[in-house]
Amino acid sequence: MERRVVKVGLLGLGTVGSGVVKMLRQNSEELAQKCGYEIEIQRILVRDLDKKRGVEVDRALLTRDVRDILDDANIQVVIEVMGGEGETRDIVLESLLSGKHVITANKDLIALHGAHLHHAADSQNVELLYEAAVAGAIPIVRVLKQSFAGDNVREVMGIVNGTTNYILSKMTQENASYEDALREAQALGYAEADPHADVSGLDAARKMAILASISMRQAVPLADVKLQGIEGVTSEDVAEAKALGQVIKLIGRARREGDSIEVSVSPMRLPEEHPLAKVNDSFNAVYVYADALGEAMLYGRGAGEMPTASAVVGDLHAVLRGRKFAAGQLELIARWA
Amino acid sequence: MERRVVKVGLLGLGTVGSGVVKMLRQNSEELAQKCGYEIEIQRILVRDLDKKRGVEVDRALLTRDVRDILDDANIQVVIEVMGGEGETRDIVLESLLSGKHVITANKDLIALHGAHLHHAADSQNVELLYEAAVAGAIPIVRVLKQSFAGDNVREVMGIVNGTTNYILSKMTQENASYEDALREAQALGYAEADPHADVSGLDAARKMAILASISMRQAVPLADVKLQGIEGVTSEDVAEAKALGQVIKLIGRARREGDSIEVSVSPMRLPEEHPLAKVNDSFNAVYVYADALGEAMLYGRGAGEMPTASAVVGDLHAVLRGRKFAAGQLELIARWA
Repeated sequence: MERRVVKVGLLGLGTVGSGVVKMLRQNSEELAQKCGYEIEIQRILVRDLDKKRGVEVDRALLTRDVRDILDDANIQVVIEVMGGEGETRDIVLESLLSGKHVITANKDLIALHGAHLHHAADSQNVELLYEAAVAGAIPIVRVLKQSFAGDNVREVMGIVNGTTNYILSKMTQENASYEDALREAQALGYAEADPHADVSGLDAARKMAILASISMRQAVPLADVKLQGIEGVTSEDVAEAKALGQVIKLIGRARREGDSIEVSVSPMRLPEEHPLAKVNDSFNAVYVYADALGEAMLYGRGAGEMPTASAVVGDLHAVLRGRKFAAGQLELIARWA
Repeated sequence: MERRVVKVGLLGLGTVGSGVVKMLRQNSEELAQKCGYEIEIQRILVRDLDKKRGVEVDRALLTRDVRDILDDANIQVVIEVMGGEGETRDIVLESLLSGKHVITANKDLIALHGAHLHHAADSQNVELLYEAAVAGAIPIVRVLKQSFAGDNVREVMGIVNGTTNYILSKMTQENASYEDALREAQALGYAEADPHADVSGLDAARKMAILASISMRQAVPLADVKLQGIEGVTSEDVAEAKALGQVIKLIGRARREGDSIEVSVSPMRLPEEHPLAKVNDSFNAVYVYADALGEAMLYGRGAGEMPTASAVVGDLHAVLRGRKFAAGQLELIARWA
């Protein structure tokens, strides 16, 4: 049986983009078997055609003109791994409105414009998936959307920022000062030169806005997330907690309180026995409490080239196996007939 | 817009079946919104029409004749929560072959006949889903199938039997003897009067055969699982491990070794820092190592009425949102037209 080909447009060829290209190549036959389609990268949007990449790609695939992707009716799926949220939002929006399914790893985009983009996706009956935007390779978005579909989620608690978790782990395990732990995280590449977005809790807040919106089924704007970072946590605080059998973690929390939803990010003391207390270094974990299911936790790498690429490719598989893609294929066939 | 109705046949109305009925009622409007279909239980197969149930149901729905479900062309989805693997296999097989999607919570059925049943499902382009069969409400089946779709799973390690985990936790935490811990588990309803299937590791072996087949993408027969139970674990063993900073757990393990797959269930010593070492009482957890993703763990309740029902309803949602169901709907419309 001849396999149909699905053409994909890739926006961005940085770390995650290169990882996606690698995974699609390494597992092409297996993926084709599971999805029923051969996946072909048709075009890749880059800023610089000559930049050295983490993966070899045919130069003819590269373009600096986004119209080469947006105007190509053969491209049915767009993978956005370029980041940003101004121009990127416009590109993603136009992709959706022109009937392309979109997969993105961009938490800023979804935290700020998720409701708007979902509306556009629904209007065209296309998918908008973003497993990689929250907690890297931990499949929390899919689990919250699908596995809890018939359940009521009461609370989501998560360690969703690897940088701050690394810093707090160092402070706890080695009695390091905040400054020393931050410097070590920077030396290892876990923290940026300007660590503000991480240590202020902003990055975690974006992810919690997304998780709250999915799990509570109600759009939670980023501005509604109460926010406190870890800059004020001292080694004395850590030692004091330890003496009480507690561990300080930067915890994102989303709770249903009557009709309203409270979302916060702040350093919290957890008893040592709490499953989240044992999530150390740059690992992420998300705890969910639901009426029927009770408690569950997902744990794994929050970032990194291949974990993130793995999440993107998982989403691609989900698009190709979903009913929206099937419906689009039938429409195409009807148009040709 | 008028919503289409999907008719479901339920096989069994015991603990899990009652939980499913409850969940479908409590969340009917939300589920309908998310699936695009109203879900209606058309018929329920029971052994005894007059038995007291955990949930009130219209007596007219109950039947002792499985033909009322198998021969009803309006029933598109069958939910099997009656257990067993002889007659049940025949019923599930006929359901699939007559084009009905099947959801089952039956690990014995899938461990013994999964390959055969999958073949039947594929031949009719219908779904066969069984999230509830392994580790209750932990969405490990979906995650292994979907989120790791583009990845290579190297190893799966799991605590997938709550009874033995409860017994070993008691032995570790309270220095209880095996016999005392077993008696306590029986008193709490965690262990059966005849605990053989649990303590011998057989129940865990069934689940590991299923997880290995999914994650390694190759049918692993139950007979190939190497098996050792916990009956031989003494309080001295537990104390000795403890002195070395280790914990004894009944670990199911599936590994790729070259071209072959090794699956085993046996008591293992884990270092106290290992994430699985901290999974106590009747909780389950599954650890996954994959090439791209690295390590991830899922943790939660392994059993119970509502956790299991939650997994079944999650599967129902997945069926209704999948492309196979969409394809079936289009065929129906074409037949009517």
